[in-house]
Amino acid sequence: MSKIIKIGFLGCGNVGGGVWRLINDFAGDIEHRTGLRFDVRKVLVRNVNKARGIDFPEGVLTDNVEAVLGDPEIDIVLEFLGGEKPACDYLLEALRRGKTVVTANKVAFALHWHELQQAAQESGAGLYYEAAVCGAIPIIHTLNESLQANRISYIYGIVNGTTNYILTRMSREGAEYANVLADAQKLGLAEPDPSSDVEGLDAAYKLSILASLAFHGRVPFENVHVEGITGIKAEDIRCGQELGYTLKLLAIAKRDGLQVETRVHPTFIPDSHPLANVNDAFNAVFLRGHACGDMMFMGRGAGDLPTASAIVSDLVRAASAQKHIYPTFDNTLHPSVALENNTDWQSAFYVRMLAVDKPGVLGHVSQTFARYNVSIRAMQQKHAAADGRVTLVFITHQAGEKAMHQALKALDANFASVESVLRVES
Amino acid sequence: MSKIIKIGFLGCGNVGGGVWRLINDFAGDIEHRTGLRFDVRKVLVRNVNKARGIDFPEGVLTDNVEAVLGDPEIDIVLEFLGGEKPACDYLLEALRRGKTVVTANKVAFALHWHELQQAAQESGAGLYYEAAVCGAIPIIHTLNESLQANRISYIYGIVNGTTNYILTRMSREGAEYANVLADAQKLGLAEPDPSSDVEGLDAAYKLSILASLAFHGRVPFENVHVEGITGIKAEDIRCGQELGYTLKLLAIAKRDGLQVETRVHPTFIPDSHPLANVNDAFNAVFLRGHACGDMMFMGRGAGDLPTASAIVSDLVRAASAQKHIYPTFDNTLHPSVALENNTDWQSAFYVRMLAVDKPGVLGHVSQTFARYNVSIRAMQQKHAAADGRVTLVFITHQAGEKAMHQALKALDANFASVESVLRVES
Repeated sequence: MSKIIKIGFLGCGNVGGGVWRLINDFAGDIEHRTGLRFDVRKVLVRNVNKARGIDFPEGVLTDNVEAVLGDPEIDIVLEFLGGEKPACDYLLEALRRGKTVVTANKVAFALHWHELQQAAQESGAGLYYEAAVCGAIPIIHTLNESLQANRISYIYGIVNGTTNYILTRMSREGAEYANVLADAQKLGLAEPDPSSDVEGLDAAYKLSILASLAFHGRVPFENVHVEGITGIKAEDIRCGQELGYTLKLLAIAKRDGLQVETRVHPTFIPDSHPLANVNDAFNAVFLRGHACGDMMFMGRGAGDLPTASAIVSDLVRAASAQKHIYPTFDNTLHPSVALENNTDWQSAFYVRMLAVDKPGVLGHVSQTFARYNVSIRAMQQKHAAADGRVTLVFITHQAGEKAMHQALKALDANFASVESVLRVES
Repeated sequence: MSKIIKIGFLGCGNVGGGVWRLINDFAGDIEHRTGLRFDVRKVLVRNVNKARGIDFPEGVLTDNVEAVLGDPEIDIVLEFLGGEKPACDYLLEALRRGKTVVTANKVAFALHWHELQQAAQESGAGLYYEAAVCGAIPIIHTLNESLQANRISYIYGIVNGTTNYILTRMSREGAEYANVLADAQKLGLAEPDPSSDVEGLDAAYKLSILASLAFHGRVPFENVHVEGITGIKAEDIRCGQELGYTLKLLAIAKRDGLQVETRVHPTFIPDSHPLANVNDAFNAVFLRGHACGDMMFMGRGAGDLPTASAIVSDLVRAASAQKHIYPTFDNTLHPSVALENNTDWQSAFYVRMLAVDKPGVLGHVSQTFARYNVSIRAMQQKHAAADGRVTLVFITHQAGEKAMHQALKALDANFASVESVLRVES
């Protein structure tokens, strides 16, 4: 009675191995629940002789991509190579040959979504990518299939587990960035070259995908403003905590009419915000829709089995679909309603300064800010530094991004020097 | 190009009105995104002359259910009557006539799921009920379509907004139950007769649905152990807070092998638990799967537009489906693997006592507890009462439900009287 679905893997690292184990170890339950049995015919790897801790049947491993893409029996291709090249070429080729694709490749989607979708639509193949964003969290399904009747005004995401782990430990321990990063690398929670994570690129890829689906218009990766966490000081985290704020690397997308802003940067949020309690390597997406109101989805954003959980859910969907469905984007269908990229967004700001300990400093700062329409919501004076200067911490009301930077430039360096500027969302 | 779907409403109160407004006000976007246009042909109401603030076209309102169920043009019936009778009869009749049903009716599902599903499967009609549990949160879709490859070991849910609102305010303000309830009633956040909410029944209906889907076996509503919040004292919330705990009305479902426990009761959870920050009328579901790990979904559990958001997502699904899919339950298909109802579960306990202020009391309590395998994890002695007795607060390690109650009964009333017993989960 069960339907047997023949599939091929492109790549078999951590996630591929997790998918192999899940569909084999849990095969009976999956079959009982879905009526589907998955038969992995071919697995593309670089080195067929490398030990992988998996007992592949004779003839399954191959180092020839054509053995997967050219096998007419394979209906669905699962891609775990990641990155742009050669994964994207393989995906496009698979789609052109009518093979449905399930992938966790965020880079492919952030950079080549249109080409992939066009190839899929032309051949009628399916294109599934739940695992590309936030691992086990079904945020792609939710945006596509549960929130169709919503005008989503914003998304706040904690979409990178490595940086969330680092910031969580810095916050708990008062430790400096470099020390926590080194420890995270030792524990395997950060890559030997961590730059894509800590500089915010990984989050920006994901944000471009989330914003495109949420706003029903393609938001190019290039439009995402990106700042990472490499410059974060333990002192700023501490000063924020004293004012009731938690620091997170947030992926932020807002839409107002046709104006869209997308930005990834370290952000203070109030301790009472549901995202403030999303700690360690967990991911979460918080969003607001005009009908659903506020929602949050939290879960494991990476790891072999959590990612495999999302991959297998796509696999079941792909194998059960009578007809594959593709998102429609207003700005490809109707160029006249193209979304506009707003780079002069509004947010509140945290500013830490070192200032001379003299009367008149606060007046100078507040008057300078006021000239640029930046008003101060809270101020704290901290301990004096060795050179006799005092630390001043300001939280502003909402202000324009550009106005704020002009205001800071206009400060008289004889009074105060700006040590840190961080954005604040609520 | 768009497909026009003719639908009928059974009932048009708060949620029905929300659905009407959403599918009309947002019709252009829904059509553009889904290719579907919804045409509401008939709306069953008790009184066609009552003012509803909606400008229904001539002839749409009817007080005759046959005008909806008997209209051959209507493909999908949306039910907003709620409750068992007559809603269930109407739903069954609609399904038997081959009309797909979309409903927010948790009672119908908790009590008559098998009959509804059987009627649907026999006629090939669809049966959609996302809005029956947790309003806007797509927890039904997620369990059915994103977590198929998971063995779910437990669910903790905050699934009733009224009680969460009351407990949140009691926690923030130190106020007593009766005062907050009265205020919630004034604000329209609690019903004039609040019993179904505050006594935990509403949560128990929803838990029976969630547990059935999560464990792939029907968990009858009758098996759910239910305790409400009417007996909660501000003093216990305060004592818990001092120990780092937040009180929530949790809907708990756990599965271990074939043993299932389902219970709704006030529960202390650590302040650091993600559910502890789910406040006011928000709902949330926290679950653990063997592949996905820990996940949480938070959102609006009630209200016209949040519920309408879920209803319309079901409507789009129902209208787009080539073939409707129904969950399969192990214990109807394979009676030999019927789930067993475990009523002697394990949990930690919070116990508040009034005790004579004499040496030996603590020894008596801990020895009595030990005889029943209950061990103490934390104890605090509080201020003395007017009669000279002192308040003792205990947190135990995990203990059996029945053993704990036997231990409490075995305490010598001359030493200590038990004032409150609450369960603790972590």
